[in-house]
Amino acid sequence: MDHALRLARRGLGNVWPNPAVGCVLTRDGRIVGRGWTQPGGRPHAERVALDQAGAAARGATAYVTLEPCAHHGRTPPCADALIAAGVARVVTALTDPDPRTAGQGHARLRAAGIAVTEGVRAAEARAMQRGFLLRVTRARPMVTLKLATSLDGRIATQSGESQWITGAQARRHVHLLRMRHDAVMVGGGTARADLPSLNVRGFGPVRQPLRIVLSSRDLPVLPGEDADHGPLLRLSGDLDAVLRDLAGRGLTRIFCEGGGDLAAGLLAADLVDELVLYSAGLVLGGAGRACVGTLPEMRLAAYPRFTLRRHVRLGPDLCQVWTRDGDAD
Amino acid sequence: MDHALRLARRGLGNVWPNPAVGCVLTRDGRIVGRGWTQPGGRPHAERVALDQAGAAARGATAYVTLEPCAHHGRTPPCADALIAAGVARVVTALTDPDPRTAGQGHARLRAAGIAVTEGVRAAEARAMQRGFLLRVTRARPMVTLKLATSLDGRIATQSGESQWITGAQARRHVHLLRMRHDAVMVGGGTARADLPSLNVRGFGPVRQPLRIVLSSRDLPVLPGEDADHGPLLRLSGDLDAVLRDLAGRGLTRIFCEGGGDLAAGLLAADLVDELVLYSAGLVLGGAGRACVGTLPEMRLAAYPRFTLRRHVRLGPDLCQVWTRDGDAD
Repeated sequence: MDHALRLARRGLGNVWPNPAVGCVLTRDGRIVGRGWTQPGGRPHAERVALDQAGAAARGATAYVTLEPCAHHGRTPPCADALIAAGVARVVTALTDPDPRTAGQGHARLRAAGIAVTEGVRAAEARAMQRGFLLRVTRARPMVTLKLATSLDGRIATQSGESQWITGAQARRHVHLLRMRHDAVMVGGGTARADLPSLNVRGFGPVRQPLRIVLSSRDLPVLPGEDADHGPLLRLSGDLDAVLRDLAGRGLTRIFCEGGGDLAAGLLAADLVDELVLYSAGLVLGGAGRACVGTLPEMRLAAYPRFTLRRHVRLGPDLCQVWTRDGDAD
Repeated sequence: MDHALRLARRGLGNVWPNPAVGCVLTRDGRIVGRGWTQPGGRPHAERVALDQAGAAARGATAYVTLEPCAHHGRTPPCADALIAAGVARVVTALTDPDPRTAGQGHARLRAAGIAVTEGVRAAEARAMQRGFLLRVTRARPMVTLKLATSLDGRIATQSGESQWITGAQARRHVHLLRMRHDAVMVGGGTARADLPSLNVRGFGPVRQPLRIVLSSRDLPVLPGEDADHGPLLRLSGDLDAVLRDLAGRGLTRIFCEGGGDLAAGLLAADLVDELVLYSAGLVLGGAGRACVGTLPEMRLAAYPRFTLRRHVRLGPDLCQVWTRDGDAD
């Protein structure tokens, strides 16, 4: 299952509106097929692994990071494909919350005489598929908030200079995270001030993420959609409604890169699922630009709390990943 | 030498105005004596290790984290003691910059026929003895600035609530660091607002650090000096002059715990040698109290830069240690 989870990760940012799933087929202790959801969401991971295994799938064990689908979409159900291939056992991490599957995939496999084990590495799978799970269960995509700040939480000097606070390695890591999300989002102020390209650079030809600018005012001219820039979407209004809209379009993972007011809006509405903080070793002082705008005044205990998941040095900077407590589905 | 450095660390905060030194005596591959500078700065590490070794010191190798002293202070010179004990070889990490020694310790040992190796683990020894080295070479103590903040660099909500942003483990770590410094320093605003105890709690009976409040105004009544509270010192004026004054009193390591204006003053004057940042997983927003006050407006590249040395999880929080670039002597 660990291997299947690693395969699944390859699909992140690439497979919406579908979940990024991984599948490993083993027989007699050897791997006979590996698959992950392909760009655009099809074919599914199981189909890829079964095609790779061919006749070797008969009697094999399938490790799948999500319950195999049971509904006829644009492809036949994966549960049926596993049955037809003669798989002997299926191990899954999660039940698919999509009402068209929701346990029916597991049931169909069992009805065909296949041994099914559920819930293996469920926490890891849930964390990886949080975007898909939130879209299905809460009708909103997952939101990752990126902050790149000085040690005292500033994103620019008082005169607005911000290039560069973090080093080259951290900036490259940002492009990696853009690639693993379906869309990159900024507020209108950032779009007007920085004319950001909001694309993935330095990783070869990739499916560029959607670019979302939240603004009720006119925007400056940003690069048009081309091989190096994803489609550009301007939205405005209530953040809950915006995210519902985005989920309706099939988006599962949004990477928000500021500015401070949009960050504050998302945090105040408790819509930030993951916070990625790049800390650079300098201090800009209280007159520098704050990374997060004003939040409502509350008791200290009422402010949103996050849980530290990872911390790793990236060149001179420190990258920290914090996730919202109790945000798992 | 690694062992000697670990022994030396025990003296930090306890031995001013003297350096915290460690000494290990080995003969035939076995340790025959270990010593570290004793509370108050005497006896020296070499004397302790020689007394422990007794006759076994003859023909031994001495590993010392600082050049043995060559001057008659309140104790006879350690160089003479090593010679008298019949030590065959001396390995040191650093030359003592104190003009009363400054190479004469090494010279005296060599003149007595002892093999001397210098500069072993010099960088580690320099980092540990930075306070003593700065006092001798720049007439100021080392300054460690502590910041305990939210992810966006805030130390309190807009209404001033700050208990608690960080968890119990981080707060206990602060007491450990107080213990390893000669004095704890705060600004007058913090002293008036928080009535801080500025003592070491939770580590048994210890030599309490000096308490320094920088304020030109009257202070509220803080606890008097007793077994649980070090002497209280109120100073005011230019920060360079204050630190010169403290070095003149023999202090080598100052632990500054804020507030934001004092932190800004020290940073603006480039007087912060080490920055210890405890990051808690919450976001307080731009109206919260900033951890560092206003710094002069400069080009981005001109703000003080620090180098990441360590990062470690402490309960729910992340502790980061950053040191000033090029600050080594």
